[in-house]
This record gives sequence, structure tokens and C-alpha cells, in this order.
Amino acid sequence: MNIYQHGLDQCQANSVPLTPINFLSRTASVFPGRTAIIHGSRHISYRTFQVEVNRFASALVKRGVKTGDTVAIIAANIPAFIEAHFAVPMTGAVLNSLNTRLDAQALAYILDHGECDVLLVDTAFSDVMRKALALSSRQPLVIDIVDPECTESSAKIGELDFETLLKEGHDVFEDNFITDEWQAMALNYTSGTTGNPKGVVYSHRGAYLNALGHTLIWPMPEPPVYLWTLPMFHCNGWCFPWTIVAVGGTQVCLRQVEVGAITTAMKEHHVTHFCGAPIVLNMIMNADQKYLTGVPRNIKVMTAGAPPPAAVIKGMESLGFDITQTYGLTEVYGPCVVSEWKSEWDDRDSDKRAALKARQGVRYPTEEAVDVLDPETMEPVPADAETIGEIMFRGNTTMKGYLKNETATENAFADGWFHSGDLAVKHPDGFIEIRDRSKDIIISGGENISSVEVEGILYQHPAILEAAVVARPDEKWGETPCAFVTVKDGFVLSEDEVIEFCREHMARFKAPKSIVFSDLPKTSTGKIQKFVLREKVRSLFG
Amino acid sequence: MNIYQHGLDQCQANSVPLTPINFLSRTASVFPGRTAIIHGSRHISYRTFQVEVNRFASALVKRGVKTGDTVAIIAANIPAFIEAHFAVPMTGAVLNSLNTRLDAQALAYILDHGECDVLLVDTAFSDVMRKALALSSRQPLVIDIVDPECTESSAKIGELDFETLLKEGHDVFEDNFITDEWQAMALNYTSGTTGNPKGVVYSHRGAYLNALGHTLIWPMPEPPVYLWTLPMFHCNGWCFPWTIVAVGGTQVCLRQVEVGAITTAMKEHHVTHFCGAPIVLNMIMNADQKYLTGVPRNIKVMTAGAPPPAAVIKGMESLGFDITQTYGLTEVYGPCVVSEWKSEWDDRDSDKRAALKARQGVRYPTEEAVDVLDPETMEPVPADAETIGEIMFRGNTTMKGYLKNETATENAFADGWFHSGDLAVKHPDGFIEIRDRSKDIIISGGENISSVEVEGILYQHPAILEAAVVARPDEKWGETPCAFVTVKDGFVLSEDEVIEFCREHMARFKAPKSIVFSDLPKTSTGKIQKFVLREKVRSLFG
Repeated sequence: MNIYQHGLDQCQANSVPLTPINFLSRTASVFPGRTAIIHGSRHISYRTFQVEVNRFASALVKRGVKTGDTVAIIAANIPAFIEAHFAVPMTGAVLNSLNTRLDAQALAYILDHGECDVLLVDTAFSDVMRKALALSSRQPLVIDIVDPECTESSAKIGELDFETLLKEGHDVFEDNFITDEWQAMALNYTSGTTGNPKGVVYSHRGAYLNALGHTLIWPMPEPPVYLWTLPMFHCNGWCFPWTIVAVGGTQVCLRQVEVGAITTAMKEHHVTHFCGAPIVLNMIMNADQKYLTGVPRNIKVMTAGAPPPAAVIKGMESLGFDITQTYGLTEVYGPCVVSEWKSEWDDRDSDKRAALKARQGVRYPTEEAVDVLDPETMEPVPADAETIGEIMFRGNTTMKGYLKNETATENAFADGWFHSGDLAVKHPDGFIEIRDRSKDIIISGGENISSVEVEGILYQHPAILEAAVVARPDEKWGETPCAFVTVKDGFVLSEDEVIEFCREHMARFKAPKSIVFSDLPKTSTGKIQKFVLREKVRSLFG
Repeated sequence: MNIYQHGLDQCQANSVPLTPINFLSRTASVFPGRTAIIHGSRHISYRTFQVEVNRFASALVKRGVKTGDTVAIIAANIPAFIEAHFAVPMTGAVLNSLNTRLDAQALAYILDHGECDVLLVDTAFSDVMRKALALSSRQPLVIDIVDPECTESSAKIGELDFETLLKEGHDVFEDNFITDEWQAMALNYTSGTTGNPKGVVYSHRGAYLNALGHTLIWPMPEPPVYLWTLPMFHCNGWCFPWTIVAVGGTQVCLRQVEVGAITTAMKEHHVTHFCGAPIVLNMIMNADQKYLTGVPRNIKVMTAGAPPPAAVIKGMESLGFDITQTYGLTEVYGPCVVSEWKSEWDDRDSDKRAALKARQGVRYPTEEAVDVLDPETMEPVPADAETIGEIMFRGNTTMKGYLKNETATENAFADGWFHSGDLAVKHPDGFIEIRDRSKDIIISGGENISSVEVEGILYQHPAILEAAVVARPDEKWGETPCAFVTVKDGFVLSEDEVIEFCREHMARFKAPKSIVFSDLPKTSTGKIQKFVLREKVRSLFG
């Protein structure tokens, strides 16, 4: 017993659970008239935003929602989805954001596994949800969201609509159901490519810290105008619904992620920040000049979700965008590793700068440890930019665990680290660089080939728009790299030309042995679906 | 039992105690070559900073320092003091920063009450500490800090010096003694003007959150160059030793807070940020032009510690400084209320802007509640800019309590709020504005007169350099205001002129009835010592 262990306990005055929900009451009281959300012609002030959140939350409570219930939502990036990020956790319930690209069967699995109590459905997705509900054993309260900006709306399938729900609530919400910062607040299913998806559970504490973590590594000196290109169902939009409220910024909604809508919103609303997978950046980079003319310069872009090829970084920067590359997974609240920039690199040429920026980087200050470990010995790999190990995380922005899956949780947290499944090297300066997902690495003649490395070279070819590399079974070598390539409009390219280009730019054994010219299948978050490509390889060469 | 209450527990991988100490290992590994500290001609890189901190901490552990011990330090703003902010808490011990202006008796009281185990003494303060040790019942290990920049150094009084201590340590420190974020990490005695000072105890959690809180309200998009004008012993330099490390900035040390040294450092090191009491700002504002020429424009200044008169804000801004006004107390880790600026005020004239900025403002996002309550009913006062109540705090950046003083702790935390003792009004926009310390309010004929308000008017007089107002006993009115005034060089001013000026600018009953021309006694943090003025009033008019 030391002198500090007596009479200095936690009490109501000095200990409040950390929660990102609290950011809203602060910003709404300080900047009530500032625009919180823009959607089409609608501008929602922070005052109105908070009133709607309070009505939303109190109506849910009236309807019986309580701590530990699951409230699911399937929606485009619309105001109700942002509001759900505050209203649902305020009731003590858990927000389960559904991936809009899933089929009815996968959605039904999630409704069942997450034990859905309330389901909010943007009517754009009512067809698939009707089927999912028919397949599911759950009978949640279903609420339709009728978005005036939605042009592909279907029939309502719910008991009431969102506007009616809001009318049931009160302008003020004074109850406090957040009694413990470790309490669950969000449930996000991973897009597992094999087996059933796993339900990643977030705490209030973790979401609070990752929301603040972004502000430390991504400069927002003025209140940002943030454009929603990243799907909000993906890791709760990487926690940005909370980050932007914490800094009193404006969130610009967008139903469709396509170049015209994106660039129009950028020009009209003077967008300062957005997040997107590299594939979204690639889309903007290759857009027709008519879209790009007039886009404000120095828009800050956070990219993550797949290692961006250096060529994409270079291309976007040449258009005047300011890229910050980050890395993360659903299990760590989205990005929590950043490719920090050092002023001493400013003078390097643009290729070298892009290559440096293409590395995944270092931990956020709010995640306590990220390292590349040998998964056998759990020792850090040497910082030699060559030895491959597994990226592991330890800290407060690591998930609570997988819902109702103790085995998976225990495996993921073995030896006191979260095992990401991503393979990487560590550079002499401590920056980590992804080589591959464990399952994406190509093993040819006993040598590891990083599909990411080969893709990085392919993207340097002036005629290649997109590229993805997977393993092709090979009698002699075990596996060899097979590249899927999309050619830019107006270019013609042969298999031999591509292979020759690769051989000139990398060790010969790493060069693809076969090239397939085709469109690339993508997930809703813009990630290339390598499992689809692997199936294609089997049907082509199997 | 809901589905989220099983199999989702805290473990090593997802739960790490929050501590600002962790910022150092992150910044040192990402930016090892960046300058962390400048002191005279010495530039300390983050690599060296971390090595010195590790040597410091491991040497303390070797010497027997353990969790819950008290390590006191008395020093100017020098590198060893910054390092102590990391090294001491790393051992699990508590850093007790001593006010350099205290006398031997007060220091002896603190050594005894805080049960000092180790004492670090900048030799500039060895005379008073030798006396304090003689008066104290403690026999701590005493370590001398011999600062090469110190020109008024006295004899060593310790068992060893700081450089020798560092040699006893190791470059690497791998033990982790921070097992609980609620653990005590700092002990700061308030400068109580009556009775014995109280020992305010900080936790790792609170310090982490307030350190991050600053970054949310004070823009630091580029790594800041932070000048130490604020004494580091004051609320741990308002948590800035940790904040600046979190954002990878440079801390410029400064032994003497005087205009020549301050402005020279600003020019030489391209200072971007500093903190200071209004009295420091007043000193800069009234400095000879020779000092001000060449000072970089747009230096960001955080001021707190006393309500700054609007005239001081206006004067500093006209010189090109960018003022952020904050408010706090030792008990809330320094500032945690900020006078947030709204862009719609940009167009107001400079007087109106200064008046808006002179209000204390709103809570930091990291402190969960700040309000003005009626201390009897504990209800919020109406937001009418008139009704006076007491400022109260609730949240994670409120102290653990007062060391070994359960009665004071219970009183301070009565009804679940920390009672600040500061009286304020709430404006219709929710911003709070201090009227007075409870003990500074003047009650004249039953009417409250805010000494701060009267001082604000006095500062508008072109011939007045400094002003302070206290109560003077009065047979008829009970009390009347008495103003102490310092006149600017080259000006002459009469009592009648000052009283007339006040009557022209405020309600007649609020105008001072007597004016005393004199220098103003100040604390080491630049606060005017009103209790000294009250004694003077008693001897003059008693």
C-alpha cells in the first residue's frame, strides 16, 4: 500500500466512460448553426443533427431497444446512417452495419448470428432484405428509410418508416446507457472469403480512441468538409462519422461512388478531405478531364484497404491531391497504421516519394504496438526490408473479439497479440511494408513471391489501368504468378509485351508466366476479389 | 446477460493502460533524427531524448524507486525537467514538481506531506532546498542538476549529480510498471493562499487525455516548435511536455522568462507555439520595439491562468500573434476550457473580437462536462450572461483527488462535480465567462462587483500597464473596489483621472473609490497575488 492508493478513487466527477457519442453534444452546443451534414439539397445543422439523433435514440428506447440489443442497418452513405452511429450506441445497443453487396443468404446469416432486434433498410436494398428476412429465423422490427435522393427505390418492407420513427421520439435524450467504456457499440462482419463471416465487436473506448487517432495523423486545422466515398458499412466508415463530429466538420453524403458524382460534390461543397480504397483513387486518376477541371487542389485523401501501387499515389499527387496512406483491418477499427511523411523526403523525385509513401508505415499514437513478428517464435523480424513476418497489433484500438466465436477470438489473440494474417517486411527505419495476405503469397520453386510487388510493377506500365496477380498451379514450380490486367482505353497490349516489361523490372522468377486480359471483380469497398480470380485460374489452367 | 457479455473480455492484445509515456517510444521510433529539445546550443534528437529517459528511469529503478514513490524536482524549464515527465512515471513513481518561488518552509511542508523519496535539484535552487531539507523530516536521495546554461548556480547539495545518475542507467528500458491507467503519475501542490497547500494527484489516463485534448483545440498541422515560457512546474506545464512529444514537435527550453530571451528564442528557432499567463503577454506587448522586430508572425499563443483583459488580447493580435484563450485549474490538468473561435466573428471589429475571445468558452472535447451551476441547488444558471454561478467540471481530465486529504477531496467532488471555486456567468451561446474567484468578488451595498470586469476597463486606458482590483472595507457600503495600477513609462496619471475614466465606462457603483499607484506582486506563474494586495489595503485603509 502506497500513499496514492488511498482516498483517490474514481468517482462521478473524475471518471466518465470514453465514448465517441459525447463528441456530438459538445460540437452541437458549441457550433449549433454549423452544417453537420449535406445530402443533395439538404443541409443539416449540428443543432438539427443532434435533435434527430435524440429523437432516433429515444424512439428506439420507447420501442424497447436496450443495452446489448443489436440494431442492424443496410444503407448507402446517407444522413440516417451517420445518425445511427450516434443514436444506436446511445441506447446501449450495438450498431450492426450490413455490407450492401452481400446476397440474401449472407445477410440472413448475419441477421441470425448477430441476433438482430431492429433492422433499418434503405429502400434501395429492400428486395434483397426481404429475401434475407425470409431466410432468417429472426423477426426484427423493420424500419424503412426512404431517401429522397434514391432513384432506384423499391417497395417498403417494414412496419414503419424512419421519419415516422423520429416522430415517436423526443428532442432531448437525457438517459445515459453507456455505463462502461468497454461496452460493445458496433458489430461489423468481415468479408471472409471462406467459411462464414466473423462478427467483429467494437467497444466505446476503442472507437473513441481511433476516432481521435485520425486527427493526430491527418491534419485538420480548419473544420474539414469530408466527402463520403468510403462505404460507411466498412469498419463504421473507419470511425470517421465520429472523427468529423469531434472536429466540428461537415460530412457530405453520396449515394453513388462514381467519378461524376464525386468530382461534382468536390467542386460544389469545397471538399477538403475524403477516404477511399486505391481502386477509387485509380478511378479518379483515370477520369476524363471534363470531370477533373475545377476540382479544388490539395484535397487530402486517406487511402487504405489494399496496398496502393506507387503509380497510383504518384498519379493522384500529380493531379494535386495530397495522399496519406494508411493500413488496417476491420479488427483494428479500420486504419491504425500510417505512412508518416518526413520533411527530409520532400526533395526526392516523384517516383521515390511515391515508393516511400506506398509503404504501410508506423502505428497511430493511439494504437500501442504494431510490429512484424515471426508467428512461430513471436520474435520481431530483422528490420532488413527482406525477412517476411506477420503484422501483429496490440492496443486499445484492437477489437473486443469475434461475437459468439471464442475459438476464433483466442486464435486471433494468441500470445497477447492480434494476428492480422498480413505478411510484411520491416524497413531499417521501422516502417512496415505489406508483402501479401497470407493466402495471397505465391510460392514458386520454394521462393516467396509477393503479389503486391508484382502488381506495383504492372501499374507502372503506361497502358495498364488495373492489375491483380494470383498463383497459378504449376507442375514444375508448384506455383507461378498469373496476372489479370485491364488495359486503358485506346491502348493495345500483348501478353508477351507485359511479361517482357515485368522481366525488365524485377527478378526473373517473379515475373508472371501468364497474362489474362479482363475486367477485375471487386468488393463493394473496391478491393479486388482475388478468390474470384483464383477460381478463374482454376477454370482456365486447372 | 446479453450476447456481447460473453467471450469478449479485455486481454493483453486489446487493452493497454492509457499513458502519455507511450507517445515517446512512438515518436522516437518514427522520427529518431528530429530535434526533440533545444537548450542553449544543445540540440537533442528524439533518439537521444529517449535514450536519456531510459537511462534516467532505469537508474532510478536501480536506486530502488518503485511504484507509488514520490520523486520531486525543483528546476527551471530545462531538458532534465522534460525528461523527468517521462522517466519518473515510467518507474511507476509519481513526479512532484516544485514551485521555484516557494520559500523553504513551504517546500519543506511539501517534501513532508508528499513523502518525498528522491529529490532532483537544479543548482539554481540549492540554497532554498538545503534549508527546506533541514526543516523537513524526510531524507530523500538528493540529485543535483548542473545546467550549463545556469548563470546563478550555487553549490551542489546532493549525493550525486544528474549526469552521474544517467551513467548508472541503461539505454533500453523494457520493464512496464504502468499496469493501471488510473495509477498516480504526478503530484502538484496548489498555491493555496490560506492554510497549507493541497496536493493534486494526476492519473496516467487523465494526463493522456488532456495531452491529446490540446491537439484538438489548438491547431498543430506541422510539427510545432514550442517555446517554454510557462513554468513546467505549473500543472506539469499544462501537460505540454507530453502533447509536444505526441505530435513530434520540438521543445525550446528557456531558463528566464524575460522579453529579450523570449523574443531571441522566437527568432532563432522559428517558434510556432507558446503558452503564457496574460501577464507574460502584457510584458511582450509592451516590450521595446527592438525586441519585437523580426519576431515571426502568426505565432500561436495559448493563454490561461487568469482571465486576460480584452485589451491584452487585442494588443497581442495587433502585433501578429494568434491568441487562443483557455481556462483551467491545477485540479483539471491545466486548461480544459477553450474560447473557441467561430468564423462568423471574423468580420467584427477588433474590440468586439477581443471581447468575444476574452470569454473563457467551452469544454475541451476530452473533458466530458463543464457548466456553471448554482452551488446550492446544483442546477445550471440561466444562460443570460448575468446570473452568477460556480464553474464545475465532470470528466476524465479531473484530478484523482487531493493527496492524504479525504475531506478536501470529498468537498471538492460533492454532488458528483468538481467545484472550481470560480464564479462565472453563462452567455446565451453557452460560453462561460469568469466573473471572479469566489474570494475575489467585491460585495458593495449588496451588489456583486466583478474585479475582473473592472480590471478589463482599466486595461483599456492608454496609460495603464497593469491593474488589479480588490475589495476595500467600507463603513457605508461594506466593501468598495480599490484598484492597484502600474503606469506605463513616460505617462503621468492621477487618481481622479482613473476614477473618472472608470465611471465613464461602467456602472457608477462598480468604479473604484480609491486608486493605488504601485508595482503588482506576482506569483511565479505571473498571476497577480491579490492576497498581498488585500494585506496592503488593510495596512493603508484598515
